[in-house]
Amino acid sequence: MMVGMTSDLFAQHREKLDAALTAIRERGYWSAYPESPSPRVWGETAAADGRAAFDAYRNGDFPLDGTDRVATETSPFGIDMGITYPRLDADTLISNAQAALPAWREAGPQARTGVVLEILDRLARNTFELAYSVQFTTGQAFVMAFQAGTAHAFERALEAVAYSYAEMTRHPETAAWEKPAGKGDPLRMTKTFHVVPRGLALVIGCNTFPTWNSYPGLFASLVTGNPVIVKPHPRAVAPLAITVREARAVLAEAGFDPNLVQLAPEASGEKLASVLATRPEVKIVDFTGSTEYGDWLEANARQASVYTEKAGVNTIIIDSADDFAGMCRNIAFTLSLYSGQMCTTSQNIFIPRGGIETGDGHKSFDEVASGIAGSVAKLTGDPARAVELIGAIVNDGVTSRLDLARKVGEVVLDSVAHAHPEFPDAVVRTPLIVKLDAADEDTYGTEWFGPISFLVATDSTAQSVELFAKTVDAKGALTASVYSNDEEVLRVVEEAAIEVGTHLSINLTGGVFVNQSAAYSDFHASGANRAANSALTDGAYVANRFRIVQSRRHV
Amino acid sequence: MMVGMTSDLFAQHREKLDAALTAIRERGYWSAYPESPSPRVWGETAAADGRAAFDAYRNGDFPLDGTDRVATETSPFGIDMGITYPRLDADTLISNAQAALPAWREAGPQARTGVVLEILDRLARNTFELAYSVQFTTGQAFVMAFQAGTAHAFERALEAVAYSYAEMTRHPETAAWEKPAGKGDPLRMTKTFHVVPRGLALVIGCNTFPTWNSYPGLFASLVTGNPVIVKPHPRAVAPLAITVREARAVLAEAGFDPNLVQLAPEASGEKLASVLATRPEVKIVDFTGSTEYGDWLEANARQASVYTEKAGVNTIIIDSADDFAGMCRNIAFTLSLYSGQMCTTSQNIFIPRGGIETGDGHKSFDEVASGIAGSVAKLTGDPARAVELIGAIVNDGVTSRLDLARKVGEVVLDSVAHAHPEFPDAVVRTPLIVKLDAADEDTYGTEWFGPISFLVATDSTAQSVELFAKTVDAKGALTASVYSNDEEVLRVVEEAAIEVGTHLSINLTGGVFVNQSAAYSDFHASGANRAANSALTDGAYVANRFRIVQSRRHV
Repeated sequence: MMVGMTSDLFAQHREKLDAALTAIRERGYWSAYPESPSPRVWGETAAADGRAAFDAYRNGDFPLDGTDRVATETSPFGIDMGITYPRLDADTLISNAQAALPAWREAGPQARTGVVLEILDRLARNTFELAYSVQFTTGQAFVMAFQAGTAHAFERALEAVAYSYAEMTRHPETAAWEKPAGKGDPLRMTKTFHVVPRGLALVIGCNTFPTWNSYPGLFASLVTGNPVIVKPHPRAVAPLAITVREARAVLAEAGFDPNLVQLAPEASGEKLASVLATRPEVKIVDFTGSTEYGDWLEANARQASVYTEKAGVNTIIIDSADDFAGMCRNIAFTLSLYSGQMCTTSQNIFIPRGGIETGDGHKSFDEVASGIAGSVAKLTGDPARAVELIGAIVNDGVTSRLDLARKVGEVVLDSVAHAHPEFPDAVVRTPLIVKLDAADEDTYGTEWFGPISFLVATDSTAQSVELFAKTVDAKGALTASVYSNDEEVLRVVEEAAIEVGTHLSINLTGGVFVNQSAAYSDFHASGANRAANSALTDGAYVANRFRIVQSRRHV
Repeated sequence: MMVGMTSDLFAQHREKLDAALTAIRERGYWSAYPESPSPRVWGETAAADGRAAFDAYRNGDFPLDGTDRVATETSPFGIDMGITYPRLDADTLISNAQAALPAWREAGPQARTGVVLEILDRLARNTFELAYSVQFTTGQAFVMAFQAGTAHAFERALEAVAYSYAEMTRHPETAAWEKPAGKGDPLRMTKTFHVVPRGLALVIGCNTFPTWNSYPGLFASLVTGNPVIVKPHPRAVAPLAITVREARAVLAEAGFDPNLVQLAPEASGEKLASVLATRPEVKIVDFTGSTEYGDWLEANARQASVYTEKAGVNTIIIDSADDFAGMCRNIAFTLSLYSGQMCTTSQNIFIPRGGIETGDGHKSFDEVASGIAGSVAKLTGDPARAVELIGAIVNDGVTSRLDLARKVGEVVLDSVAHAHPEFPDAVVRTPLIVKLDAADEDTYGTEWFGPISFLVATDSTAQSVELFAKTVDAKGALTASVYSNDEEVLRVVEEAAIEVGTHLSINLTGGVFVNQSAAYSDFHASGANRAANSALTDGAYVANRFRIVQSRRHV
């Protein structure tokens, strides 16, 4: 390997790494990558250049070597994709990765960290191309695809690298040990501690957040020494193909085997993820997606450390609200963003059937319902503006579920189909809001992925808390939120949130939303309930991705 | 809870904790508890008082409340035990533990750390009583029981507490977050991070090291907020009963529910460990013992994070030796200590059949064999001296295995039965050394627990390394050792040790032995091969014992 170059890379990125290490220790606000796609940041042609780069991939062979090619993407915006990716069989992927492992392990934590941070910076130089690839595979509107799909994904990756680096270097590489031995000479030894990867790592991407949800595991596994096989969702290959291409280029330039990062697209129905996840050589699996498949991985990929982010019943408890309008606007944004197709979007909104006290006086249940529904309608009523917020529906499952949800209760706000001004074939649906009763637990007690939310009438806030605890204990949740002017209510809800292991946002009425988490500061998922078995990102997320093997000898 | 008292306890133990935190970061020599049982340290009557305290338990009810009592211990030294322990059923143990959890969680990391360190100090004030209980349940000679069973066990516990404390406090309890928002006011939030235990923890003790192997898991789980159910080995209950009694006393004095630590002795054949380990409420399992049962736990206790230390084929590779006599003495001590009944005792000693170069000239295979055998014979020949090193045989399985091992190859040194001068009914056996060939992999390729070692004739050191890698890859190993004057050979062996994930000791000829590891400096087990799925103690060992659940609100 080119040791000179890798030590240069580490030095080059050292300042950023140190800032990230400080950020994860202090957990205040920090950012390494600009989240605005503004031409003032990027230059006048950056967006058009990125779009052109993305368009150049369409209807052609993606620039990764390989003859057996697969094309599985269709765009929620209705544009034709037609990008073909090279397909490798499981044996080839695994033997390639194994061959690449030893030199990467021997390079050590610093050299690996330098290379991995260079990969991140290289991706950041391809931000617009990556953002368009996220937009057109997921259905996110462009600005969201830019923020969540590139800038915030880079931050989460850097955060995972920082945790990994801290964990790999918490022990010295060598230590002197000197034990007094009474009147005799002390016992003296030198000890060497090697950071040893677990083996091969598999990252299984999801359709809706192919980069944001894949990067933490990908970068954490790679920097700790594990070759990574990246298995994209068949409908969202491009963002991870771009990622793998850049990673391979940087690895090769630094003198490492590019097969440390491989793309594993699959032909339709191949079940490649299951094949790879259960191979004995694969020791780490990161997955984001359905509860059903996540549970399958946890049960079956037993030779590996498995990190899953699945689904749950995200909840808002409304007890009272000083700023009623602010609350409604804040909730409306959460329900509307990306048509509620986030694993963090709130589904169940518990409201006392007798209404609530607000800064504008008492509001009945129906007034609260129409306040929220009205805010959503305002946000999403005008198609041209709406599509820049709600984007497109990611797949047919969501539209079928919408049709079903219309029938489970009283529709407070119906979902409407908008025509997309720019993409006539895009499938655009505004949020559906349905009124339910506390007794309808069979309905709201499970996840309805998509722009579907339930306003659930409860006997009291006490019952709301009880139902929150019960449903989340049964199904998990990634987010929870509460509105109340009563500190005692907030205390009780926070206690319940701790009990069921769900992060809680309190009285959000401004520019922070329950469905969004800030890297370095907010933990995403907790690993403390059924919605996920780990958090992004903490010590537990990285510590099991490597082992320490020591040697010792007398001085 | 008595907050005043717990904060006092934390302050009281702060200096020791800080020293331990420094030690685990630097991994040099450090010690908090004296390892010598000398009257100069403890006073003239400490040993006799401890023995009297232990004897007072015999043939009576151990001082823990409960009416349904079980007595399952027999002493390898042949003394009558007859100690009865209160038995609780699984439901009671679990509901007791669950009731104790919330207040312990709410006390927070500092208060818990203070209490847990006070428990350790209280145990240290009962060192002799505990040492005798270890001696008489395990068969260890007294000095070893004192060192490994008390002082070193306390060090490993403190080490685990230090890692846990570091992990729980790597993030602040609260953080201020302020994100610039263009020309508007910045977004400002306060975030609170709660350390939340996983649930209930189960510690399954072993017969040979009831304290040393149980304490790290017990203390790590407890300090991170998890109530602990301590299931002792039926033949080694007393050391953990004393531990639980002291823990409960300290917890009660500090105002916590003593059921945070419960003893779970079982009636014969009850399979209580399996019942508890698979209960949904149990989220952490620590186990030391057989590979078979460890594998069963890993496969079946799927609702829990399972930490296992099992068995393997510990190996010595002899290539050459500057100090031949020192090598033979060092190996002889390792084979003899506690009659080789340590999970770290070397079993397979690979020696080139053409012999080796030494500081005393060339030694043939048989000369190497008789050098080692002669050193063992010298160490263990005199019964009165031998028993203070080799102790007693822990159970009948070991003696049957000895009989079987005699027949698998040429006996180089036979195991002999010694009469114990003090305990006429003790079962004492000196080490057996058998010569095998590289081809006899069916024999040396599996674990033969007890005072059984194989001198395996290989074609060359290269073959020795190959067989080491092959057998350890298949069966795991906790320790490996190499003797060579050739740095290139050492490099190759270290590479192989890294590949199979086994810690390596190099050219030990003095007062450090491959079967012993020093707390704060040496990792015990690596978690990187089949002998164990985790190390004692590193970040990975503690990070998954709790989760972080956060709340956030605007300032």
